[in-house]
Amino acid sequence: MRKIVTLLIMLLPVYLSGVSSAIAATEETKELASWNEGPSRRAIVDFVKTVTDSKNKDFIPVEKRIAVFDNDGTLWCEKPVYPQFIFAIDRVKTVIEERPELKEEAVFQAALKGDYDSLAKSGAGGIQRLIGATHGGMTADSFDKIVSDWMKSARHPRFKQPFNKCVYKPMLELLDYLRANGFRTFIVSGGGRDFMRPWTKETYGVDAEEVAGSSCHLEYKDGDVYRTEKIDFLNDGKEKPVGICRQIGARPVAAFGNSDGDFEMLEWTKSGAGKGKSLCMLVHHTDAEREYAYDRDSKVGHLERGLDSAAEAGWVIIDMQKDWSRVFSFEK
Amino acid sequence: MRKIVTLLIMLLPVYLSGVSSAIAATEETKELASWNEGPSRRAIVDFVKTVTDSKNKDFIPVEKRIAVFDNDGTLWCEKPVYPQFIFAIDRVKTVIEERPELKEEAVFQAALKGDYDSLAKSGAGGIQRLIGATHGGMTADSFDKIVSDWMKSARHPRFKQPFNKCVYKPMLELLDYLRANGFRTFIVSGGGRDFMRPWTKETYGVDAEEVAGSSCHLEYKDGDVYRTEKIDFLNDGKEKPVGICRQIGARPVAAFGNSDGDFEMLEWTKSGAGKGKSLCMLVHHTDAEREYAYDRDSKVGHLERGLDSAAEAGWVIIDMQKDWSRVFSFEK
Repeated sequence: MRKIVTLLIMLLPVYLSGVSSAIAATEETKELASWNEGPSRRAIVDFVKTVTDSKNKDFIPVEKRIAVFDNDGTLWCEKPVYPQFIFAIDRVKTVIEERPELKEEAVFQAALKGDYDSLAKSGAGGIQRLIGATHGGMTADSFDKIVSDWMKSARHPRFKQPFNKCVYKPMLELLDYLRANGFRTFIVSGGGRDFMRPWTKETYGVDAEEVAGSSCHLEYKDGDVYRTEKIDFLNDGKEKPVGICRQIGARPVAAFGNSDGDFEMLEWTKSGAGKGKSLCMLVHHTDAEREYAYDRDSKVGHLERGLDSAAEAGWVIIDMQKDWSRVFSFEK
Repeated sequence: MRKIVTLLIMLLPVYLSGVSSAIAATEETKELASWNEGPSRRAIVDFVKTVTDSKNKDFIPVEKRIAVFDNDGTLWCEKPVYPQFIFAIDRVKTVIEERPELKEEAVFQAALKGDYDSLAKSGAGGIQRLIGATHGGMTADSFDKIVSDWMKSARHPRFKQPFNKCVYKPMLELLDYLRANGFRTFIVSGGGRDFMRPWTKETYGVDAEEVAGSSCHLEYKDGDVYRTEKIDFLNDGKEKPVGICRQIGARPVAAFGNSDGDFEMLEWTKSGAGKGKSLCMLVHHTDAEREYAYDRDSKVGHLERGLDSAAEAGWVIIDMQKDWSRVFSFEK
């Protein structure tokens, strides 16, 4: 026994170091696995290696490692139309059963028929009416359940997957990579805050309080919190830095978007870093085959100012087709 | 060597179990150390032991362990007047240097003289004007620095300590105890959200995004986020459950307050638990010697409905004098 014990004790450090290198190697292989070698991947890794190196002049202490992500078109697929819009249209039937008088209004008739052209013609007023009626008039808890149930049953029209499976694998890896390096990750979306919160934890590992978004006015009455039909905050464009102050209360050092609605979020992130390091990236949808290709001519996810300003601003454009070896987890 | 090694191996489990009991004993001694044995301490420990026991019918999974705390009078001393009000008055001199025309207004004259009676007479309009002018008109980042600097230099008029040292030691222990048992802890205060966030992490271990409070309207212009003088949310009374939905996005199972401004927060927490367990507690200020004694007759921290309803609602009243062996860390 003596020999065995001695041997075991001698081998222990060797064994442990082996375990640790094995873990390190696996981590190295796994992290950012769906990112091809190229300028985007390099920008991410360079930034993270630099700001987490305590000997580097651009070191950022853990408490300041705040990364913000747009959702539609940045973390999940926003085409052919924002998933929340599909949710609203799906809910019109239920809402009209409860309130038959709404059937008289053109916007609800268009929604019932799935007539997108007429819907578009109903303008901002019509869309707000549709969003208000389908998102308001119930308790906060009920809405949470309505969204959760819809997310389980609804399918993306092209990919035939639940919408929260139509999320970009490289971006999930980026969230993981940043968190593994001490960053906290937040979602700052033009979409509805309360539409996202029920599923962001399981989908992205992002807690409800880490999600900023558009919202409706809430009211406490009869001992519960009710959603009204009035939209009280549109978390888009110039309101995104405001939304960050409201929800997160800290200035980010990394920001990820895909449309001109993210412009000010990236601008404010970059200027907050001053002469220090920041990482600002825009997902450019260049892959019609695996996903969609769109930018300047698209209403959904319109990207023009961002493309024109990126080089001068020092923002990195992610070329979906070239930079991502895989777009979705469900791809074969 | 053989014997020694064998002995070591045989003793290892004994040693390890000794270490673990030693740790357990220390933890037991340390946790809730400033809480006297009595109904309040028992209510806390019973609740936590019950809802964290996976075999108990009232088990609450980790993701639902949400605890919310009022700040003024619940976590820190709110007497003789809310610290944020002292902050506003301290700032009047600076604000008037920048905007001399304000000297003409009665409310600023009263503030400059420290004339609390005249200030009170200026009514809600006057106080809002004072808060607006002292809290608005700068970038979000500047305000953060102004608050941090003030917190370092200002002293409580009676205790001669920085205001964020005038926090209740038993409540700090409660925050720690809950977090050690898988709870996430949030602040839901009538005070200013952005007045609290710069110091809640170091004081309470609560991150900026875990703080809900009152706020002013924010605007993005010239590439930065500016604070306006317009108050856009008063996170008090009926608005506290609303504030929780906005900031936290989950219904709490434990809520701690001290005034009637916390009533609806406790009510909503209790009703959300349905037949399940919840813990709702009110700090009752009964200790004029170590802190202050006040309730029904006080404007600051007015407590009346809460005292009258607690027994029937199943809320626990914390008797500061009887339940706390120590109020502040700085006590000798």
